[in-house]
Amino acid sequence: MPQELRAVDWTGNSLALIDQTVLPQRTETRHIRDVDDLVDAIRRLVVRGAPAIGAAGAYGVALAMLQGEREGWSRDQVLTAVARVREARPTAVNLMVCVDRVLTRFDDGLDAVLAEAAAVQREDVAANRAMGAFGADWLLKRVDVDRPLRVLTHCNTGALATAGWGTALGVIRELHARGALEVVYADETRPLLQGSRLTAWELVQEGIPHFVQADGAAAGTILRGEVDAAIVGADRIAANGDTANKVGTVGVALACADAGVPFLVAAPTTTVDVATATGADIHIELRDESEVLEWSGIRTAPTGSRGHNPAFDVTPGRLVTGLVTERGVLEVSAGELPGDRLR
Amino acid sequence: MPQELRAVDWTGNSLALIDQTVLPQRTETRHIRDVDDLVDAIRRLVVRGAPAIGAAGAYGVALAMLQGEREGWSRDQVLTAVARVREARPTAVNLMVCVDRVLTRFDDGLDAVLAEAAAVQREDVAANRAMGAFGADWLLKRVDVDRPLRVLTHCNTGALATAGWGTALGVIRELHARGALEVVYADETRPLLQGSRLTAWELVQEGIPHFVQADGAAAGTILRGEVDAAIVGADRIAANGDTANKVGTVGVALACADAGVPFLVAAPTTTVDVATATGADIHIELRDESEVLEWSGIRTAPTGSRGHNPAFDVTPGRLVTGLVTERGVLEVSAGELPGDRLR
Repeated sequence: MPQELRAVDWTGNSLALIDQTVLPQRTETRHIRDVDDLVDAIRRLVVRGAPAIGAAGAYGVALAMLQGEREGWSRDQVLTAVARVREARPTAVNLMVCVDRVLTRFDDGLDAVLAEAAAVQREDVAANRAMGAFGADWLLKRVDVDRPLRVLTHCNTGALATAGWGTALGVIRELHARGALEVVYADETRPLLQGSRLTAWELVQEGIPHFVQADGAAAGTILRGEVDAAIVGADRIAANGDTANKVGTVGVALACADAGVPFLVAAPTTTVDVATATGADIHIELRDESEVLEWSGIRTAPTGSRGHNPAFDVTPGRLVTGLVTERGVLEVSAGELPGDRLR
Repeated sequence: MPQELRAVDWTGNSLALIDQTVLPQRTETRHIRDVDDLVDAIRRLVVRGAPAIGAAGAYGVALAMLQGEREGWSRDQVLTAVARVREARPTAVNLMVCVDRVLTRFDDGLDAVLAEAAAVQREDVAANRAMGAFGADWLLKRVDVDRPLRVLTHCNTGALATAGWGTALGVIRELHARGALEVVYADETRPLLQGSRLTAWELVQEGIPHFVQADGAAAGTILRGEVDAAIVGADRIAANGDTANKVGTVGVALACADAGVPFLVAAPTTTVDVATATGADIHIELRDESEVLEWSGIRTAPTGSRGHNPAFDVTPGRLVTGLVTERGVLEVSAGELPGDRLR
């Protein structure tokens, strides 16, 4: 993917989102002008990935101000609209962080808000570049093989999931750029297939060799020694390193621990919520049953079946070998807890 | 499902197979008269599940004899055709066991072969009933909760996967019959969705409360304490208890071990291959890439992506709390190895 391609972009009077629900079949951009449409886009995963949602939320403050101007809202009405954006995806802590940051410039007017949102976006790309370098350095030092690495990832954490470049996929892109990557195993990531639809699409754009596999294949692939490291993103990280990420992540972590393979989480420090002591305090969003009972609107389970559809799971910090942030790598399972180091 | 419903049935001159590739949308029966069609049905998973494949293979000997009569084959040609049936699914050891057993009556003629195949089928149902009772007894003694059990299963191991009643799902049916089952979590089991298509269909027929979930949800559901036990089937079990089963199984086992939840394998003793020392000696079938790159013929991954599609994985015996057979429960992780006990 060209580096300048943006999942989230401010056009001057609207927020342009690449519609991630229709990739890889079609590349379509949605132009969002209303807060309702933004909340809907976040909920329907038109934009997804914690940092991309954060960037969208940052611009959402400007969007609410512009809509308020058009529709004659009071200050309180604008702030209520912003609050709805802030709460659109409860697990994504950096949506709240980004909205709150931009809100500090609210009383300075639209230009100040837009400048702050642009800074959020710019800094996210810079953070991702730093994560890529720290993560690649760590892996190349710690994984003792004399050939390029085989890396497994889950869900999508690339340019589409962030303001640009990617978190976990940024580390993978960095390894590739250094000639140190043999192949990526991309879990398809049911129910919404962010792995096969989005990660694989980004990997094709980059010319990075990869296999798409069923999520159930991950543990066996790791236990058979076909993987040198796994690296994933995060939606929220507790002070003790417990990490909420896309459902299926903890299964990858358990397999890595059993096989003695490093399990890395790559996420900006804004993903760490020091106010959340442990993963037990993280609310797990249950999404609509239809996502696991249907496929593209066609029922796959029989009538009469119910679905259980947690969007996330929590990986205990004891299973996180390394937390890759823009400031460096914390070896969480060895006792470097984010709550102590990032406070 | 009515108990008399048979995934595999001999009609007198053909083998009637419920086509498991079109369930739950349609219930269709394929009448197989040719060895080629049987091999194709086994490969395409029209009939699947190790014991059901075993029963189909048993009748396959009769099928080859009848086709040989019609087409004027030599004895060697008939035996060559039988060998093709025997090898149609290399991981399914009891396909080979069942074919070999029926072959011992080959020189006694068609009626003797058919009687032996019918005995294979009858004994499988009886074995499943015994497993159901042993497994339910063991769980009710070992799981210390004063409410009905919450059980997770993976893939399909019910009447459809066997000659009748089911292995792991037979234990679940037995718990339900005893009023000791609260709910089943059925992993959808990608890529072919045997869990959501077949297990859920059987559970609906039985009126057993259940949730279908993405395979990636299993580990989190177990770690959050929502599951009292997991129970799965097996395609092949090595002497040390290492168990080959549907891809995704070892992830369930790892989560159970981490959470201290019993992980049971229910399989007839014919599934144990004492000649296979460990799981490292089990060949893992790689199925077609399209199963993970497409959905009902529609491409979901981008053009340019490759698929990695192991059909099975191997769960180390150290993770198998109990192996439920028709002779009783072996506590494999505690040192009761099938190679010692079943030789």
